[in-house]
Amino acid sequence: MSGHSTAAFDAAEFRKALGSFATGVTIITTRAPDGTPMGLTANSFNSVSLSPPLVLWSLANTSMSLAAFRVAPYWAVHVLATDQEELSARFARRGESKFAGLDIESGVGGVPLLKGCSARFQCRTAFQYEGGDHVIFLGEVLAFDRNEAAPLVFHGGRYAHATRRDPLGVKPRSAYLEGSFGDDFLGYLLGRSHFRMFAQIRRHLEEAHLTDQEFYVLSSLTLKRAMTVRDLDAGMAGVLDENSHRAIKSLVQHGLAREAVAEAGVEGPAYELTDAGREAALRVISAAKAVESQVLERLGAGEAPVLKSLLNRLLGVIDPESAALWDASAESKAPTP
Amino acid sequence: MSGHSTAAFDAAEFRKALGSFATGVTIITTRAPDGTPMGLTANSFNSVSLSPPLVLWSLANTSMSLAAFRVAPYWAVHVLATDQEELSARFARRGESKFAGLDIESGVGGVPLLKGCSARFQCRTAFQYEGGDHVIFLGEVLAFDRNEAAPLVFHGGRYAHATRRDPLGVKPRSAYLEGSFGDDFLGYLLGRSHFRMFAQIRRHLEEAHLTDQEFYVLSSLTLKRAMTVRDLDAGMAGVLDENSHRAIKSLVQHGLAREAVAEAGVEGPAYELTDAGREAALRVISAAKAVESQVLERLGAGEAPVLKSLLNRLLGVIDPESAALWDASAESKAPTP
Repeated sequence: MSGHSTAAFDAAEFRKALGSFATGVTIITTRAPDGTPMGLTANSFNSVSLSPPLVLWSLANTSMSLAAFRVAPYWAVHVLATDQEELSARFARRGESKFAGLDIESGVGGVPLLKGCSARFQCRTAFQYEGGDHVIFLGEVLAFDRNEAAPLVFHGGRYAHATRRDPLGVKPRSAYLEGSFGDDFLGYLLGRSHFRMFAQIRRHLEEAHLTDQEFYVLSSLTLKRAMTVRDLDAGMAGVLDENSHRAIKSLVQHGLAREAVAEAGVEGPAYELTDAGREAALRVISAAKAVESQVLERLGAGEAPVLKSLLNRLLGVIDPESAALWDASAESKAPTP
Repeated sequence: MSGHSTAAFDAAEFRKALGSFATGVTIITTRAPDGTPMGLTANSFNSVSLSPPLVLWSLANTSMSLAAFRVAPYWAVHVLATDQEELSARFARRGESKFAGLDIESGVGGVPLLKGCSARFQCRTAFQYEGGDHVIFLGEVLAFDRNEAAPLVFHGGRYAHATRRDPLGVKPRSAYLEGSFGDDFLGYLLGRSHFRMFAQIRRHLEEAHLTDQEFYVLSSLTLKRAMTVRDLDAGMAGVLDENSHRAIKSLVQHGLAREAVAEAGVEGPAYELTDAGREAALRVISAAKAVESQVLERLGAGEAPVLKSLLNRLLGVIDPESAALWDASAESKAPTP
């Protein structure tokens, strides 16, 4: 732990420590006395009281919006859903045209209401309290609505996903032999998940008279116009305990792939899909995508993107080829006003 | 969206709407005038001001701890880390012995400080504000410390994990053929992750002269004292495009498995590991576990349990056998005081 006491108070370190507390992200809106819609992103929201129903948030003394909120009789809090990161970024910027192009509803006192949020609270200003370099606004909730949706989360200066936690005390299945794989072993979970998913499309492979290996090679060939044996072997590295040679030969024999015209500087023969191969690949792939959307629906809209993101991150760790995906990516910015 | 206005204000619905806003979880501690250490779990914490450094939280008028906090000159906020759910539950209960057995430090004004948190803020009471059925406490932060740790999160009435979000605008790799698998396809991600993980232990399989299938059967046999062909086939269902028959035969030939004495009422022959089989299985499994801990370390301590939890949940959806794991599990309880 890095400790700090009054003498050595570093603002950046203090911000970092505050950032350890995860929060949702909200947009607070109101209407200025001249009728202009106002809005800003804040994560300083919290609930206060159930009876009377009160919520609070705080706004910096230096905020351009402070004057309007100081005199506003009403304002609305929008708790953002996981797919509203762009909206969060838009209302975190300075500028006049935050509402441009948005589909706005009108709430209590004409307050602009945004759509697609996890929850909305329409409030009457109840109290304004001093809070150092911020003003704390307490609002009495006059109306609210809610939408079942995964939340947008902010933690450690970045946007985050929240996923439901397994209750404490869920025990892995016991094994007869000490040292066996268990439900807590990632390799086991990945293998089982993969094979169970794959089993759902094996019927389609059988209809197309394709072995697993042939299907892997066939679907690899949908990614590039032509691939050399070396390309294919690289893609198949670690897939089963054999290389792509036998699978390609069989695909060519069945008229699903053929040798492509060699490009200059490319070593060895390259392969491409025939029309029949393209059709067979896309038929199985589309069946696989249908299975996938059913599975993802049952898993839950909030969990699916997190699982995919974590698997992509895992591949970045164990699969050097995938790592390049993450290099160009930009960092997120803080939403606190 | 389900809407509510003043007339039809339902406390349970209002709570649910408030629960849409994700929060971290904190424990607030102080010392009563008679020296008794006090503490409670709260998620109503938030930052207010940087200069002066102020934070706030609120406490129900009905709380047994209110009298002590009303007169306390100092208190401390502990932002809980992901592995402190039990601590959160302990301080959310009523009772006198919350601190029993805990390793406590002493902070400003003798305030009890807990260990292992993401961040701690030691505060002097600055203001107490009215907040309906709660009192809002503002504290001036006199000292703080921070620990890089994944946070404990509360959302929708349950504990949650937070995982870093991929920045907006990361594009999947393009494919030559419209309709191909992409980096966004779960089946592809699972397959690739599984095979890349498996490739890391294939060297060990080769040393042990085991095919992939033989290894799957061998490691299945570590789970129970004896398994019938039907048990094994059920475990292998969907694994590659064959059943366990050939693999068992080969394992028996190589002296790694043998027929077990049939139990009453069990159909068909059962198989068990020989001493050599047990040794071979555990040797490869332990190599796999070593690979796994390296991978998980690089993935990050916060992400690994979330990935495992989501894969387990995925299996609950696609794998009926695993679903039983989740049935007996209890729900978490709200930490709001």
